[in-house]
Amino acid sequence: MSQKIGIIGAGNVGGVLGTRWAKSGHTVVFGSRKPESEEIKILVSGAGATASNGTIAQAVSASDVLLLSTPWPAAEEALKSAGDLSGKILIDATNPVRPQLDGLLLGNMTSGGEQVAAWAPEAKVVKAFNTVGNNVMANPEFSAGKVAMFYCGDDAEAKRTVASLIGELGFDPLDAGPLTQARLLEPFALLWISLALKYGYSREIAFEFLRR
Amino acid sequence: MSQKIGIIGAGNVGGVLGTRWAKSGHTVVFGSRKPESEEIKILVSGAGATASNGTIAQAVSASDVLLLSTPWPAAEEALKSAGDLSGKILIDATNPVRPQLDGLLLGNMTSGGEQVAAWAPEAKVVKAFNTVGNNVMANPEFSAGKVAMFYCGDDAEAKRTVASLIGELGFDPLDAGPLTQARLLEPFALLWISLALKYGYSREIAFEFLRR
Repeated sequence: MSQKIGIIGAGNVGGVLGTRWAKSGHTVVFGSRKPESEEIKILVSGAGATASNGTIAQAVSASDVLLLSTPWPAAEEALKSAGDLSGKILIDATNPVRPQLDGLLLGNMTSGGEQVAAWAPEAKVVKAFNTVGNNVMANPEFSAGKVAMFYCGDDAEAKRTVASLIGELGFDPLDAGPLTQARLLEPFALLWISLALKYGYSREIAFEFLRR
Repeated sequence: MSQKIGIIGAGNVGGVLGTRWAKSGHTVVFGSRKPESEEIKILVSGAGATASNGTIAQAVSASDVLLLSTPWPAAEEALKSAGDLSGKILIDATNPVRPQLDGLLLGNMTSGGEQVAAWAPEAKVVKAFNTVGNNVMANPEFSAGKVAMFYCGDDAEAKRTVASLIGELGFDPLDAGPLTQARLLEPFALLWISLALKYGYSREIAFEFLRR
């Protein structure tokens, strides 16, 4: 079904998605604080006949579906300038990422892994084997691909030992960085857990890490 | 290389991993508060000749590599009863998950998605298109599999519309539940971002969701 889609923030993400949607026949308005900039005009001409440019308020008023794709620091102001959002579908594609990429600005300040390290300061703590259920640990064979198993920690030699133990069991061992990355691996685990136990996917699920 | 592995908490996860490691030739001590229970004895006999049972302190003192696989509420007490952990590799496989599976007990209390919904209360907010880079949004083709794209929100009809927009672009659309699940999808996004930009995997990475 053809949709009227307004892009709030026509940058890296909004530019790509708006262009692909316009090319597949949706009506797309690229909303920007600078709708007459050269960059936006090039974007619109590349996206084809069903694409146009406008202010953020114009993109919003012309559309039923909105994509919020500003940088996080610009999101609040963009929404304030958006006009009436009543009943609009607002796809939030933003991430409140800290500039150093070492955490989120909201809601993600520590982890069980760091707490464990505080309880066991003499040990070399490696977070691992927390992101799939024990059924997948018992048998990680999926016909479609190899199951990813992330690990993180602050001791390189300990991590090599753990990577080897992961690989032996048939997983794809993936170094996610320092122990603070447990702040990401624990929510990743809860994603698995909540999908498996609460949202109707079964426990027979996992993730493969794709590279190209 | 054969390791001496101590299991701290021989339950669902520790039982499976300890058994698999023992069967592949590692020396495994299943540490438990009740090392003489029938359950632990059955576990040890199933794991073979390189497995044994003991208290948590015995499992720790006999081993170089430890797996912490208690339920989260038991982790602190288990570590306190573990004895000297100096220089041990401690694999933390726990997750500080709330009993209702609706969040983590540590470090994960809100999300950008919920903040966006507070800024735009009239809109139907769906968190989506935040978990891979725009290069993958431009071209989600990986020879090994289909790229997962999660979405979450509180309006069922809005989610159906967004799922369709996701599927059209060549992604596997996956309903992750209500908008509070943005607390999991944003850390999942930062996992992608940090691997791509900070820890040496390139931007040409993604996840496939496996089912069996």
